[in-house]
Amino acid sequence: MSCDFFALANTGVQGLHPYQAGKPTDELERELGLTNIVKLASNENPLGVGELVKAALEKELSSITRYPDANGFYLKQALADKYDLAPAQFTLGNGSNDVLELIARSFVTPEHDVIFAEHAFVVYPLVTQAIGATGIAVPAKDWGHDLAAMLAAITERTRLIFIANPNNPTGTFLTAEALYEFLTKVPENVIVVLDEAYFEYVDKELQAPSITWLTEFSNLIITRTFSKAYGLAGLRVGYSISGPDIADILNRVRQPFNCNSFALVAAQAALSDHDFLTASVALNNQQRTVLETFFSDQGIGYIPSKGNFITMELAQDPAVVYQALLHKGVIVRPVAGYGLTKHLRVSIGTELENSTFMQALLTVLAELAAQ
Amino acid sequence: MSCDFFALANTGVQGLHPYQAGKPTDELERELGLTNIVKLASNENPLGVGELVKAALEKELSSITRYPDANGFYLKQALADKYDLAPAQFTLGNGSNDVLELIARSFVTPEHDVIFAEHAFVVYPLVTQAIGATGIAVPAKDWGHDLAAMLAAITERTRLIFIANPNNPTGTFLTAEALYEFLTKVPENVIVVLDEAYFEYVDKELQAPSITWLTEFSNLIITRTFSKAYGLAGLRVGYSISGPDIADILNRVRQPFNCNSFALVAAQAALSDHDFLTASVALNNQQRTVLETFFSDQGIGYIPSKGNFITMELAQDPAVVYQALLHKGVIVRPVAGYGLTKHLRVSIGTELENSTFMQALLTVLAELAAQ
Repeated sequence: MSCDFFALANTGVQGLHPYQAGKPTDELERELGLTNIVKLASNENPLGVGELVKAALEKELSSITRYPDANGFYLKQALADKYDLAPAQFTLGNGSNDVLELIARSFVTPEHDVIFAEHAFVVYPLVTQAIGATGIAVPAKDWGHDLAAMLAAITERTRLIFIANPNNPTGTFLTAEALYEFLTKVPENVIVVLDEAYFEYVDKELQAPSITWLTEFSNLIITRTFSKAYGLAGLRVGYSISGPDIADILNRVRQPFNCNSFALVAAQAALSDHDFLTASVALNNQQRTVLETFFSDQGIGYIPSKGNFITMELAQDPAVVYQALLHKGVIVRPVAGYGLTKHLRVSIGTELENSTFMQALLTVLAELAAQ
Repeated sequence: MSCDFFALANTGVQGLHPYQAGKPTDELERELGLTNIVKLASNENPLGVGELVKAALEKELSSITRYPDANGFYLKQALADKYDLAPAQFTLGNGSNDVLELIARSFVTPEHDVIFAEHAFVVYPLVTQAIGATGIAVPAKDWGHDLAAMLAAITERTRLIFIANPNNPTGTFLTAEALYEFLTKVPENVIVVLDEAYFEYVDKELQAPSITWLTEFSNLIITRTFSKAYGLAGLRVGYSISGPDIADILNRVRQPFNCNSFALVAAQAALSDHDFLTASVALNNQQRTVLETFFSDQGIGYIPSKGNFITMELAQDPAVVYQALLHKGVIVRPVAGYGLTKHLRVSIGTELENSTFMQALLTVLAELAAQ
């Protein structure tokens, strides 16, 4: 017997297109037989793994046959200490992707609208679509969030607004003042998710005091991650910070073992490794200047970034440049799916990775110019 | 400002009660100041981690700053080789819990019924409830699935049926013949999930040839896990095997990085470690006989089990026995939440763990008899 299972799938699910991840290094190795590949495609931390994390993981090796702690007791306690909040305000996720999805699944139905910005993180429309809710992509202003237009888009149907600061993939940034004013104008029954995945890369004097806003705005949820500055992308740990009532709801929907044992111990160790975090941010911000100077010097357009990546605006077809870079062993990220039709995003790597990328890009552009 | 976020949560979410995990060892240490705790609460593999897995994890340490392979290329290839199927028939999950949830979220809406057996794995009603669908718990027969009654419960509203074989927490088992006959009678537009988390513990001659049924029943989804006989509970890897059309839908809903890097490499290594699997199953089945003989000899009731756990039926209040065992450093699993009001479930451990448990139980029962 046979049956049309696509027709049986939920309406929202039928319209889903899978997330396109950055091309993995070993995939390129398989396809082109290249080695010494530089991957600058997924906004990963180029410094690798810190010593404290390494030690914690090695210690955990013997206990992987045991289930993880379903409540993440020690990690939540460490987060609560860091922020001077209660453990009950945290919701752990299998990456912040998991938390973003939990929030949508907990509060949004097909009858609701979800607001996000054009060119914002693709997981916002994906989780909205999976539920069968209506996503409202508010046109961007200077590649970033247009907060006034987002406020104007709020209707009776609006249940959730996603704000990414800095935004991925454009690297654009909203000031603390603009965000605070925005929050005062959002109705209290509309949940605002402030996605701060790249928070640690922002200069200290520009970082929004968003944690202190939680007492004033009970509809605010802040999400952060260990995948970027903390260097644990492969282990998948993100979290949300909110009032305890929202956290209680998210924790009901959360899969009990969504963070695995390695992820829990590594994140706890990473939180305590201040030197690694400082070195990661310092390297990134120094190399960001190197890349931006290079783009300026070469007349290559780019969107100024507060993150660990820069989106270039090319005169050439970005798909052609992307493929040509792949053949030179450099993986960057196509962003046409974000409505960025002239663009490619490059993650900021080590000095060596970045100079390999710059050299390859110059060669590719010269070859294209000669055709 | 403040707002009743519970009222804003989706109807199904409001009714959710979080999954009650087995008590973690370190929680008992914190609470009672005990050491040398024996945890026989979560059906984990007592043999620890195999050498091939350990080596794979140590090798992976350096690359955790990179995102996992979103497609699980190598693990799916290894699974396809093992079963002689196509990689496109597999959906990887963050534990089989994740896959069970993906199936429900992909195909079930609040307008649907989901059928499962009384005393079956609690994740079935949990995922049903989270969607706001109606769960139909069909009364058990001899503590196990009553397949005739489950067939009779199918209506126009039925979209999904969960069958656990062996069933957790009762350890009951359905023969291949009974399952096959059941499948021939289920309408093709009703999806049947055959949850075989404990498959490897079943004697070879009794194992259902369920994989071969996939070509005949396109509505069949089989789920298996690395958390039990493969010993990777802490790493969270489960998977489903289905037709490629169903797998395509599940993979759209799946979070792209739901299995982390460690999980992927460990599962691949575990698949190749035949000796570890053989030793795990042999230890379990030998010790299961030891425990069943003990229960019989001591006049303690139990439900015969095909899994790596046994559910006891006690003359004493199980909550009292559970607490008394905790104070002796032995963690077993209360199962009142499964409608098993006179019962406690004990996972089958090493010879030493089991003898510690048996000694502690005898002491507790003697102390209760003396009161």
